[in-house]
Amino acid sequence: MNSQALSPPVKRIADSTVRRLSIYLRFLEEFEGRGLSTVSSEELARRGGTTSAQVRKDLSFFGSFGKRGLGYSVPELSTSLREILGLGRGWRVVIIGAGKIGAALAQYRGFRQRGFQIVAAYDSNAEKIGGTLEGIEIRDMHRFEADVEKDHPEIAVLAVPMEHAQAVLDRVARAGIKAVLNFAPVQLHAPADMTVKTVNMAMELEGLTFALTNQGV
Amino acid sequence: MNSQALSPPVKRIADSTVRRLSIYLRFLEEFEGRGLSTVSSEELARRGGTTSAQVRKDLSFFGSFGKRGLGYSVPELSTSLREILGLGRGWRVVIIGAGKIGAALAQYRGFRQRGFQIVAAYDSNAEKIGGTLEGIEIRDMHRFEADVEKDHPEIAVLAVPMEHAQAVLDRVARAGIKAVLNFAPVQLHAPADMTVKTVNMAMELEGLTFALTNQGV
Repeated sequence: MNSQALSPPVKRIADSTVRRLSIYLRFLEEFEGRGLSTVSSEELARRGGTTSAQVRKDLSFFGSFGKRGLGYSVPELSTSLREILGLGRGWRVVIIGAGKIGAALAQYRGFRQRGFQIVAAYDSNAEKIGGTLEGIEIRDMHRFEADVEKDHPEIAVLAVPMEHAQAVLDRVARAGIKAVLNFAPVQLHAPADMTVKTVNMAMELEGLTFALTNQGV
Repeated sequence: MNSQALSPPVKRIADSTVRRLSIYLRFLEEFEGRGLSTVSSEELARRGGTTSAQVRKDLSFFGSFGKRGLGYSVPELSTSLREILGLGRGWRVVIIGAGKIGAALAQYRGFRQRGFQIVAAYDSNAEKIGGTLEGIEIRDMHRFEADVEKDHPEIAVLAVPMEHAQAVLDRVARAGIKAVLNFAPVQLHAPADMTVKTVNMAMELEGLTFALTNQGV
């Protein structure tokens, strides 16, 4: 899918490439914290469990980085990766569904570290509305469309029961939000201009049971 | 990495391949529910957002499936995929960390659907020990090693604060558990015979901000 693209404009970058960029960025930030100024593609590859050719290819989609024999500048490459990943700014996130998964996400420290700001949580259960989820106001889902028009959140996290997930996604799409992180264990249908990522915990466990069943893989 | 392997014995299967098998299985089960008996690689590809060549290649690692022009038998292929993914049996899972993420996982319906049985939760907070997490007993982490020897859980889910995650992983490894699903937003170091999957919610969001930043990608 991405084997022929060698230079910007960026297009059709595989999810697996984006995921590796996120991983490289984490290593670079760790190196920055330790005061290291350069890193080789071999070192990034070793830490990321991939090959140096893959590292160079992943980065080549986005421009020219590093110097042969000298490696990559840690501060320059981490700045570039933050820009590529869209992390040079804050993002407004709403959580839909103020249940246990919503609560776990609202308190998740990894979000705040990365500049993701949770601006509101929504629920349709009258007992929850008006309360708080880790300090975040739980609003009536009836207000959702009006609030989106006012607050302009960019990302919606769906933490609703699976039987409601598609209907909620349709509302999110009509409200104009273009990015969704879905925790319901169900495949959702979204308009082409929307990006939906589904985190399916059971699928993560299947990656483990595959490894346990095929020992030595 | 997997481009040269064409037949069993299974080896060095990429995570992305295993993930696609999980996705194909979900479609096949949906087709089973609708009473369909055969499916083409084109249909699986279309639903999974990939190519029919990729579907055939993914399956070819594990044997010979389907007949040219006739497609795949839905019940046969779903049975095979369940076996390949290690889902033909139950798995005993322990949750370490009885906080919000632990609670969200304990009640996650997707696990029970797939035969994952949560046998115990552990915490080191005296106020939590002896209580329950969605009906599951919260045990003292001091008992962990003795319990593992008795209960033989195969999978540990780490839902502990990130500053404790590596130390807990080391205990899990020494206790002999070979598969870990980690929710702490930190890279962990594990022995070579152990499989660790880290679910990093911030990285999932970065996949979305990448898409939002590179519109039309």
